[in-house]
Amino acid sequence: MVTWNNMDTLASFQKLSELKDRVNVVEAMSGENGADRAVRYSTPMAEGLAFNYAAKEIDDTILEALAALADEAQLVDKFAELYNGAVINTGENRLVLHHLARRQLGDPVVCDGVDKRDFYVSQQQKAAEFAKKVHAGEITNAAGETFTTVVQIGIGGSDLGPRALYLALENWAKVNNTLKMEAKFISNVDPDDAAAVLNSIDVSRSLFIVVSKSGTTLETLTNEAFVKDALVKAGLNPSDHMLAVTSETSPLAQGDDYLEAFFMDDYIGGRYSSSSAVGGAVLSLAFGPDVFARILDGAAEEDKLAANKDLLKNPDMLDALIGIYERNVQGYPSTTVLPYSQALNRFPAHLQQADMESNGKSVNRFGEPVNYPTGPVIFGEPGTNGQHSFYQLLHQGTDIVPLQFIGFKNSQIGMDVVIEGSTSQQKLCANVAAQIIAFACGKDDENPNKTFKGGRPSSIIIGEQLTPESLGALLAHFENKIMFQGFVWNLNSFDQEGVQLGKILAKRVLAHETDGALKVYSDLLNI
Amino acid sequence: MVTWNNMDTLASFQKLSELKDRVNVVEAMSGENGADRAVRYSTPMAEGLAFNYAAKEIDDTILEALAALADEAQLVDKFAELYNGAVINTGENRLVLHHLARRQLGDPVVCDGVDKRDFYVSQQQKAAEFAKKVHAGEITNAAGETFTTVVQIGIGGSDLGPRALYLALENWAKVNNTLKMEAKFISNVDPDDAAAVLNSIDVSRSLFIVVSKSGTTLETLTNEAFVKDALVKAGLNPSDHMLAVTSETSPLAQGDDYLEAFFMDDYIGGRYSSSSAVGGAVLSLAFGPDVFARILDGAAEEDKLAANKDLLKNPDMLDALIGIYERNVQGYPSTTVLPYSQALNRFPAHLQQADMESNGKSVNRFGEPVNYPTGPVIFGEPGTNGQHSFYQLLHQGTDIVPLQFIGFKNSQIGMDVVIEGSTSQQKLCANVAAQIIAFACGKDDENPNKTFKGGRPSSIIIGEQLTPESLGALLAHFENKIMFQGFVWNLNSFDQEGVQLGKILAKRVLAHETDGALKVYSDLLNI
Repeated sequence: MVTWNNMDTLASFQKLSELKDRVNVVEAMSGENGADRAVRYSTPMAEGLAFNYAAKEIDDTILEALAALADEAQLVDKFAELYNGAVINTGENRLVLHHLARRQLGDPVVCDGVDKRDFYVSQQQKAAEFAKKVHAGEITNAAGETFTTVVQIGIGGSDLGPRALYLALENWAKVNNTLKMEAKFISNVDPDDAAAVLNSIDVSRSLFIVVSKSGTTLETLTNEAFVKDALVKAGLNPSDHMLAVTSETSPLAQGDDYLEAFFMDDYIGGRYSSSSAVGGAVLSLAFGPDVFARILDGAAEEDKLAANKDLLKNPDMLDALIGIYERNVQGYPSTTVLPYSQALNRFPAHLQQADMESNGKSVNRFGEPVNYPTGPVIFGEPGTNGQHSFYQLLHQGTDIVPLQFIGFKNSQIGMDVVIEGSTSQQKLCANVAAQIIAFACGKDDENPNKTFKGGRPSSIIIGEQLTPESLGALLAHFENKIMFQGFVWNLNSFDQEGVQLGKILAKRVLAHETDGALKVYSDLLNI
Repeated sequence: MVTWNNMDTLASFQKLSELKDRVNVVEAMSGENGADRAVRYSTPMAEGLAFNYAAKEIDDTILEALAALADEAQLVDKFAELYNGAVINTGENRLVLHHLARRQLGDPVVCDGVDKRDFYVSQQQKAAEFAKKVHAGEITNAAGETFTTVVQIGIGGSDLGPRALYLALENWAKVNNTLKMEAKFISNVDPDDAAAVLNSIDVSRSLFIVVSKSGTTLETLTNEAFVKDALVKAGLNPSDHMLAVTSETSPLAQGDDYLEAFFMDDYIGGRYSSSSAVGGAVLSLAFGPDVFARILDGAAEEDKLAANKDLLKNPDMLDALIGIYERNVQGYPSTTVLPYSQALNRFPAHLQQADMESNGKSVNRFGEPVNYPTGPVIFGEPGTNGQHSFYQLLHQGTDIVPLQFIGFKNSQIGMDVVIEGSTSQQKLCANVAAQIIAFACGKDDENPNKTFKGGRPSSIIIGEQLTPESLGALLAHFENKIMFQGFVWNLNSFDQEGVQLGKILAKRVLAHETDGALKVYSDLLNI
C-alpha cells in the first residue's frame, strides 16, 4: 500500500533541502569534468531518445538524495497504483487511465463491468475503420465527393494536444505520403476564430469533429452551432459533416446529429486525452490510423521506462525530481521548454496546459493547504527563434530560469542547403549545443555588459528524428514527469477546479445578473 | 538635464517599498467599493482604447507614491531626451528613434547630417510606391504575372513584430477588402521551417523580403540562400523575386541581387522595428501602404500620451510603474498577457521579446550590477483558450502572476451566431469581465479544493475593435511601458549583449573547434 504525505513531511526531502546551491554549474561543466558529465549524466528514453541532464545543478550526491526521495514518496508504486486502476483522481472519484489507452502496463482494469483496455481499443478501431472509409472514398459528402479537410472543434485539452501533435507531424506526413487530410482547429469562442477557419476551407468537403467529454462545454457548443449555421447557409446538411467525440452519457452521444460518434470516458482528463479518441479521431483522419497507432506505441514504450524503480533508468521520474530540486530547493519559479524543431512550435503550449493545469494547485489531495511552492510557470518557443528574442533575459536577467531543450539530429522534410560549409540542420544543432554551454559556463569579459555569469541549468532530450514514435515518447515523458511531480507535491494532478469560477461568473454576466465591479466591466465591454 | 540613478538609490522608491501588501484586492474589488474603483481607476489611451487598472493592488496612496517615483526618476524627461535624439543606447553609442518613424514628437533629430524623420518618411514612401506598383501589376514576375504572396525572411525583431501585426489584421483586411497579398514568414534556421513555407506557396508568384540590419544574421542569410536555391530550381531568377530591408552600409545594400532595397538604420532596434521598413515593407505589400500608415498613426497618438507628466493621464507610464510595484515591492517574478482576441494570438510572443530582451539585464546603463530584480518573465495566450489551460495555476497555484487582459467590444469579421441568448462576441467579452472579478475576488467554498483565494491583480485594455489604429496604439503602449520600466531600473533597454555568446559558440561548433562538454554535445547531435 502506498501512503500519501506532504513533501515537507518526508525526511528525504529535508535531506535534499540541505543540498541547496551544492553544484556550481560553471565549474562542473567546464573542462574535462564537463566532458565527463556530458557523457555520464544521460539516460536512454524510448524510441532512440536520450535525456541528458549533465548541465543541471546535480551531482552523484544530489542524485542519491533524489533517489531517496523517489523511494520515500513511493513514486513508482504510486504510478503502479494508477495504471492498475486505483482512484487516483480523488477529488472527482475517478481512475486515471490515459496510459491504458496506449497499452496495458499492469493488471486488467475493469470498471463498471467494462474492461477499460477493451473499451479504448474498440474506440481506436472504430476511428480507424471510419478514417479508412473516408480515405477510400466510401464515406463522402452528399455530392459524392471525398472529404479533404478535418476540423477539430474543441478547447483546452481537446485542442492543444491534438493540435501540437498534428503540427509536429504534418510535414513528416507529407514527405512520407501519409497526409490523408489537412487538419484545422477551432477553439476560441472569439467568433473571428471560427470565421477565419471557415473562410479558409471548402466546407462542402470538410468533416468537423465536435469534442467535448461532458457535451456541455459552452465554447465548443457555440462553435459547433457556428459551423452548423455555415453549413446550412452553404446548402449542406450538417449531419453529413459532423462527428462527435464525447462520453457515452453526454447529450452529444444521443440523437442523430452526427455521422459517427467516438467515445471517451471520465478516466482520461482533457490535457491527457491526446491518446484517447480526442486525438485518435482527428489524427487518424489526418494521417491514417497507422500513424496514430505509432504515436501510441512510442508513448507506451516510454511509459514502460517510467515504471522502473531505478531512478537513473527512469528518465521521466528523473526529470521530475530534478524539477522538484529546482522548484523547492533552489527556488526557481518558472521553467522554459525550448524545442529546436519548428514542427514542435505548439508543443510548449500543450505542455504549458499539461503542467500548469495539473500542478498549479495550493491544496493537497486531501484538500489541505500545502506549505511549499507547487507547479511552476511553463513557457517556451522553438529555437533558434527564441535565441533572437527572450534568451537575453535567460542569459543575463536577474532571475534564473531552468531550461529544457529538445533537439533532433535530422530534419523531417530533408530539403537542405550548404551555406558556409554546413547545412541548416547542422546549424540548428550547433546552436542548441552552443546554448547549453553558454548557459552553463557563461563567459567573463572586462565589459560587465558583455559578461555572462553562466550557472543557468539545462537539460536536453536528443533524438534521431521527430517521428510518430519519438513524438509519442516525448508526449509520455512530459505527462509522466508531471505525474511524478504531482505525487511528490501530494497533489491531485487530475482535476481542475480552478477553471470553474470564471465559467460561473461568465454565465452570470450573460444573464445580466451582475452587480458591483462585475456590472461595471460588463457595461464597459458592452455586454 | 536628467540624471541616471539606480532605482534603489531613489527616496521615492524607498517610500514605495514601505507600501508592500497595502491593498487587499479581494476587499477592494468587492461590493460598491469595487464598482467605484472599476469606474475611477481607468485612463484613456489613444484610438478609443482605455487602460483600466482597478483590479491592480493600488489605491490613491500607492498612485501618489508611483507619481513621486516617476518624478524623481525623471521618466518623462528621459523620454523627451530620447525622442529629441539623445544617445540613450549608451552601450552601442546609438540614438533610439522608433518613435520618430511614426511621427516627430519633439525637436528635429539630425544625425550624420541627415534629418532622421525625413529618412524614415522617405523609406516609407519608397515602400509605398513599390507596393502600389506591385498591386497595380506594374511590377510582375518574369512571365508578367502579378505577385500574390510576400514572404518575410527574418528572425527575432525582423519576424515577431511584423508577424504579430500581420496576423492581427489579416482577417480585418479581408473584410475591408484591403488584403492585397498573403504574407508568410520564414524565421527558424531549422530547414523544415523554410521548406514548409516554400511547399505551401507558388514561388513563381512570390516576393521574398530578406530582413537583416547588419546583413550578417546567419539564420537569415541561410534562409535567403535556401529560398534562392528553390527559386533557381524552379527555373526562376532570384533577383526578380528578392527584396532587402537592411542598413545602407550592409553587404545586402550593395550589388544587384535585389529588385529593391529599403533602408533602416542603427537607431531602431530589432524588437522596435515594426514601425520601420522592417514592418513597413511587408505590411505595405500585404495590406497596402495606407493601412501601414494607419498603424503608425495609432502608435504616434499613443506616444503623445506617453509624453504627459501627469501619471494618471499617461497610461504607458502608469502601466510601467504598476509593474515596478509588482516586480520590486510585491516580488512577482512573471507577468502574463492575455488578449481576448484570436487575431492577437502572436502578440504575446512579440511582447515576450520586446520586454524580456529589453529589460532582462543584470547591469545598469553604466555596466554596474544592480541589486534588484529587473524584467520579469512574460508569457501569454489568447483567451478564452487560456482559461481551459494554464489559468488553473493562475487561479489556484501557489504563486501570484499579475495579469494583463486586452479585450474589444466588437469582432473583426462580424460573422456571429446567437446561442443561448448571446453572440460569440458577447460570450468572449463576458468571459474576460468574469475573469477579472474571479481573479480579484475569488470565492469561498467549504471544499478547500474549490476555494479561490482571489487577490490576483489584473488590468485590462478595452477597445472598440482591433483596427490598424488601435493595433498601433497597443504596440506603442507596450513599447513605452517597457521603456519607462527600463528607465526606472536604470538599464540600457536597447542593446542585447546576452544573445552574443551563443552565436560565438555555435560558430565554433560548426568549425569543429570544440573541446570539453561542447565537443560531447556536438558529437551527440551529429554535427
